[in-house]
Amino acid sequence: MKQKRTTVLIMALAMAAGMHCAQAQIAIVEDFKPTPVNQPGSPFPQVNSEGRVRTQILAPDAKRVQLDIGAVKYEMVKDENGVWTGESAPQDVGFHYYQLNIDGASVPDPGSLFFFGACRWGSGIEIPSDDQDIFALKNVPHGHVHEVLFPSKSTNTSRRAFIYTPPGYEQETSKRYPVLYLQHGYCENEYSWPMQGRANLIMDNLIAEGKANPFIIVMTYGMTNEIKFGGLRDFDIKPFQTVLVDELIPYVDTHFRTLADQKHRAMAGLSMGSMETKTIVMNRPEVFSHIGLFSGALFQPDEVKNKANVKLIFQSTGSKERPDAVKQSTEALKQAGINAAWYVSEGTAHEFHTWRRSLHQFAQLLFK
Amino acid sequence: MKQKRTTVLIMALAMAAGMHCAQAQIAIVEDFKPTPVNQPGSPFPQVNSEGRVRTQILAPDAKRVQLDIGAVKYEMVKDENGVWTGESAPQDVGFHYYQLNIDGASVPDPGSLFFFGACRWGSGIEIPSDDQDIFALKNVPHGHVHEVLFPSKSTNTSRRAFIYTPPGYEQETSKRYPVLYLQHGYCENEYSWPMQGRANLIMDNLIAEGKANPFIIVMTYGMTNEIKFGGLRDFDIKPFQTVLVDELIPYVDTHFRTLADQKHRAMAGLSMGSMETKTIVMNRPEVFSHIGLFSGALFQPDEVKNKANVKLIFQSTGSKERPDAVKQSTEALKQAGINAAWYVSEGTAHEFHTWRRSLHQFAQLLFK
Repeated sequence: MKQKRTTVLIMALAMAAGMHCAQAQIAIVEDFKPTPVNQPGSPFPQVNSEGRVRTQILAPDAKRVQLDIGAVKYEMVKDENGVWTGESAPQDVGFHYYQLNIDGASVPDPGSLFFFGACRWGSGIEIPSDDQDIFALKNVPHGHVHEVLFPSKSTNTSRRAFIYTPPGYEQETSKRYPVLYLQHGYCENEYSWPMQGRANLIMDNLIAEGKANPFIIVMTYGMTNEIKFGGLRDFDIKPFQTVLVDELIPYVDTHFRTLADQKHRAMAGLSMGSMETKTIVMNRPEVFSHIGLFSGALFQPDEVKNKANVKLIFQSTGSKERPDAVKQSTEALKQAGINAAWYVSEGTAHEFHTWRRSLHQFAQLLFK
Repeated sequence: MKQKRTTVLIMALAMAAGMHCAQAQIAIVEDFKPTPVNQPGSPFPQVNSEGRVRTQILAPDAKRVQLDIGAVKYEMVKDENGVWTGESAPQDVGFHYYQLNIDGASVPDPGSLFFFGACRWGSGIEIPSDDQDIFALKNVPHGHVHEVLFPSKSTNTSRRAFIYTPPGYEQETSKRYPVLYLQHGYCENEYSWPMQGRANLIMDNLIAEGKANPFIIVMTYGMTNEIKFGGLRDFDIKPFQTVLVDELIPYVDTHFRTLADQKHRAMAGLSMGSMETKTIVMNRPEVFSHIGLFSGALFQPDEVKNKANVKLIFQSTGSKERPDAVKQSTEALKQAGINAAWYVSEGTAHEFHTWRRSLHQFAQLLFK
């Protein structure tokens, strides 16, 4: 398809560059399309082949409207009908949180679907990637994602978990499955992996291709301070470890057809979730055998307790994070005789596309 | 608790009353509290004992900010820090959609959770009611809500359904259950019943009290034009009837332990969903035996086909809708020898509290 190029006046990247009001002539490729995470029927937001985000909002009486994405605010421009339009610089492939700023008010873009991240439900955008096929909704058998409210005595609440059961779970009623406990990051919650992480579709596709053995995935909220997010500095793993190991695992093992032993139980997490994973598997080595650390904690060989029972340590990162540290740490584990693997997500940073790809890689190594 | 009363200057109900800038002295009861549908950690929106909604937003450069609820826009007032605050008139008990208007832009309130209704994901608010206990999250056994992607040849897609299985479903593996197919209204979707409808919690509580027999509930999207909402005038039931009866029911009957016959299958819906229910049960009387019509269609005796096999017709409405028509229609059904029941939700209109209560009543009559 021939691409039309237009040149528009924008005040962009001004804040990132430390300029206050830079104006630049930027050529923008005019092949914008609505995205898979738009609200039903909404023509905006749109993304072009460069990965720029364009959105629009009617705000006839506003003085200033900005598109706020990737920690940069891009000026939007008003037309004669009061409709503001603006574009971002090209974004990394994959999923990003964003918002609008209308005369100083930070609000969700009403054109997008809403996701939990950055400590709040707000707008999300999907930048097409070469490998988006790994989490696409395809015509293959689909597993179910169960929303479960499990009793937690330690917190005196019913707590939510999302539990993925693979295709065939309902029909093959004598089969039992291994389980992966999969944690989100700081300022995310139990919705993050099934929604923007697309964990269920990644698994459906891998299983349909014969690349992963079917297993159950359990995703719950990784903190016990429900009301407000606290500082990570004061984070104490104990309350969540109790919820996960002493309350949720027994619930899952009595309500789902699991293989309820260490050999068939994995834990993984992204960012804060990787730190939780490392801490909990060190505290309770008798519970988990397969370990995944995405974009965060790394294992040193002398930290691995009960080595004979550790079946896999998988460590990953975005290429824009710290690939060398991940490789070095993982090679050291291998030299210590531990079954370890590393993965670097090309062209991505500390964001969900790195973690989708990490799950896609990790899942192919699990329980084999 | 002693309530403090303050008198504040507000421009309220101006639009409803046809005035452009009316100012009125209104005494507002100062017992506002954050609501159960606030974003984690967000102090606003709040609701007081009169059912007024108060919200706040930082918008230092805005000229005008309004709270838009119940088809009325209420002026908000800016303080010296650029924070706008405003209150609505008292609202009916239960759940309502709302939004903010910032210098002409209609946006979600970033302080609230988001729900699908009014044709979009946007802010929702919960006004306390005397009977909110019926859908409260309690320390009782909880069923699971399965997110299912079922194959639909007629629409060439994988379509989403939420499927409630009652407590005990996973453990009592030889037990089979009746099924209710439960439809949302126009400009809502398959998320509406499990989210703002709280269908799963209503059932968990009824089952814990021994007031309802356990059954499965299936909730799917009731239209086949996924991308944009069309006019109801041109609505053709056939495509959805095909999805529901010829594709979803067989999927449910092969993936869940159902009692797969007419005697053990119900259909109900609210508003547009009640019209779909009436039409489909008339077209396919061999499929459903129990029928629920909430706030919409009504049956006349001569419209009921296959009378001997109709086990129940339940018709309901809010007291602010048309209770007389519902009572008359239902009494006529009874006189024609049909097992029929009516229910009027006191003090509510065409809104979700009417439908939560309707489900709560209907569920106690089902499959008995």
